[in-house]
Amino acid sequence: MKTIAILGTLDTKGEEHAFVAELIRQRGHETLLIDVGTLGDPTVAPDVPRADIIGDQQFADRGAAVAAMAEAAAEFCAKLVAEKKIDGIISLGGGGGTAIGTAVMRALPVGFPKLMVSTLAASESAPSYMGVKDVTMMPSIVDVAGLNCISRPIFANAAGAICGMVETARPVAEDNPVIVASMFGNTTDCVNHAKGILESAGYEVLVFHATGTGGRTMESLIETGLVAGVLDLTTTEWADEHVGGILGAGPARLEAAARNGVPAVIAPGCLDMVNFGEPDSVPAQFAGRNFYHHNPQVTLMRTSADECLALGKILAEKINLSEGFVKVLLPQGGISVTSQSGGPFHDRIADEALFASLKAGLRGDIRVEEFNCAINDPQFAEVAARALLDQLA
Amino acid sequence: MKTIAILGTLDTKGEEHAFVAELIRQRGHETLLIDVGTLGDPTVAPDVPRADIIGDQQFADRGAAVAAMAEAAAEFCAKLVAEKKIDGIISLGGGGGTAIGTAVMRALPVGFPKLMVSTLAASESAPSYMGVKDVTMMPSIVDVAGLNCISRPIFANAAGAICGMVETARPVAEDNPVIVASMFGNTTDCVNHAKGILESAGYEVLVFHATGTGGRTMESLIETGLVAGVLDLTTTEWADEHVGGILGAGPARLEAAARNGVPAVIAPGCLDMVNFGEPDSVPAQFAGRNFYHHNPQVTLMRTSADECLALGKILAEKINLSEGFVKVLLPQGGISVTSQSGGPFHDRIADEALFASLKAGLRGDIRVEEFNCAINDPQFAEVAARALLDQLA
Repeated sequence: MKTIAILGTLDTKGEEHAFVAELIRQRGHETLLIDVGTLGDPTVAPDVPRADIIGDQQFADRGAAVAAMAEAAAEFCAKLVAEKKIDGIISLGGGGGTAIGTAVMRALPVGFPKLMVSTLAASESAPSYMGVKDVTMMPSIVDVAGLNCISRPIFANAAGAICGMVETARPVAEDNPVIVASMFGNTTDCVNHAKGILESAGYEVLVFHATGTGGRTMESLIETGLVAGVLDLTTTEWADEHVGGILGAGPARLEAAARNGVPAVIAPGCLDMVNFGEPDSVPAQFAGRNFYHHNPQVTLMRTSADECLALGKILAEKINLSEGFVKVLLPQGGISVTSQSGGPFHDRIADEALFASLKAGLRGDIRVEEFNCAINDPQFAEVAARALLDQLA
Repeated sequence: MKTIAILGTLDTKGEEHAFVAELIRQRGHETLLIDVGTLGDPTVAPDVPRADIIGDQQFADRGAAVAAMAEAAAEFCAKLVAEKKIDGIISLGGGGGTAIGTAVMRALPVGFPKLMVSTLAASESAPSYMGVKDVTMMPSIVDVAGLNCISRPIFANAAGAICGMVETARPVAEDNPVIVASMFGNTTDCVNHAKGILESAGYEVLVFHATGTGGRTMESLIETGLVAGVLDLTTTEWADEHVGGILGAGPARLEAAARNGVPAVIAPGCLDMVNFGEPDSVPAQFAGRNFYHHNPQVTLMRTSADECLALGKILAEKINLSEGFVKVLLPQGGISVTSQSGGPFHDRIADEALFASLKAGLRGDIRVEEFNCAINDPQFAEVAARALLDQLA
């Protein structure tokens, strides 16, 4: 017997969630009915009243109430999962309910069963509701507004699906331990070479492209505890995040490995570049800067020495959060294909500003090694892979 | 014991589908492994080889092969469902696999258990893969490329979810029979009044906004066989479809009720208007036409007499497909708020062109009634509701 959380705005959608709860109990599971309504009184009795989540706060408008409830419910449910009090979660909703339900689900680990039945499942906003998590989305087809001959079979499918998820044993296998790595076209030689070395040593290497989504997904996997080591050689997303490019990965990039004590080897790969789309899409404020037209849809801008100073400081702050092993490797000969000698972004002064502020900002106990080669030299990849392997051995 | 179809490109993703098949069999269900690969030989033995689906056709490129396979597999699986040979379907895929898997699922009835595990679940293209069907989408997080500590729990969740869906009995209930109705802001008074009458008579009325998606969803529900009657008083999507507005519902709008013999009452509601977005979005070819600024984001254009002639002809062609009861009601006093007397789109000549060509095009046995009132007059709503009730009684 498992326990399944049923989360919903029980002021307007009590009947629908109660229907799903009953089907789940008929299959022999416990249910925990959580009210996240923000308007009227719940129409069915919850196991967790909204006051347990958000107290007696009052809100100026519905938008503020939904946002606050989403945040509070996410924290509440993440705690339930951490304490192993629930084995799966399901929610049904329209606009507000989907915002709250998926905010909760995005706060839970990958692999934890989560199912959202939503009027917005096939809408353009669905990707932002799913984020980088395995939020399974089932379209409600009709409004989540009562039980009828359309909603009843769909809700029954949903109840069955979440039960089936919690009932299925996770097959245990002698998986090779997983290493995650960050890559860009401009660090492909480096990461592929290191990947080969790690795989030969019996690891599985999952590579994420540093596209913002890639970095966020990698961070979210590290959070699951399923990752043995991190080869973060392409930390470029911080350039976009700081300067204002289009591929930023948010302010928490680089934190997951640090905070969870997952061994990491880090290099400032591709921090010479900020990503924009077509040339016309570059904001006017950057007129006169050094651009490289990677392809018709990708325009790269060289980071300045000032920006590199700031980026070194940011990287140091994040790396200083580390609770486990971390090593920083600096390729003096260039941090990408474009910035190595002869490349369009070659700028020794900017690179040196980056390295200097990074070194100056790091905690005294964190090891930094400098190499007289470019990031894509086989020698650099070998040192990076060996540094991680030594730690994991 | 149920039978679950497992559909996949077994040339590149045999191992992953075999893993899911094994978990499903462990729960006691039969599996039917269907190969829809288009490149190399399958890496695991399918129950249905690709030749059974698509013969020995050869294709010029991968895109053509995927498109042809999607179409053929959709037809093959729809037949399996119609013959009750499978109870659910699951597929795992990247780009090509998602295109094929979801094309199949979109061809199956609402309520039939269907689950797609996809690298594209949270992508911007996900809505087009789901269409108007209840295609449940589970993000794969990492590539569907081998079994590892990330993909294994996700695939196990997926296997569990599809098993849970097919295992859950559809609760039988004394549902009120369902009537679907089409509405726009400009026919709200009419449809709401009719809805009240139908509900008092013991029907449940599901209202769909004539936004293209709304009409397509309504048509897809009619296809399920779960709809007792259709009150299609807002057939406006044909104006956008024919003239080139933004809310067309595709060329099959109005066909589902006709082809499936579902009783329908039809009026040419809101065929006076074509929908565009902000004023700047109106194509240059329409300069000089009669526009009405419904709100900052919605610009309406009056249909011309010529366009109305064509629209009447299209409606007649669609209605002539009817295999069951159908009645056409014409409100001489205006087909929307905007085109009734005093409204910005009042155009008696255009309306008359619409009515005349519709009447001239209809099969001789199809009843048409004309009323000397506008579509939103209570009298019109009452006649429409009663006409449908009389037939359903």
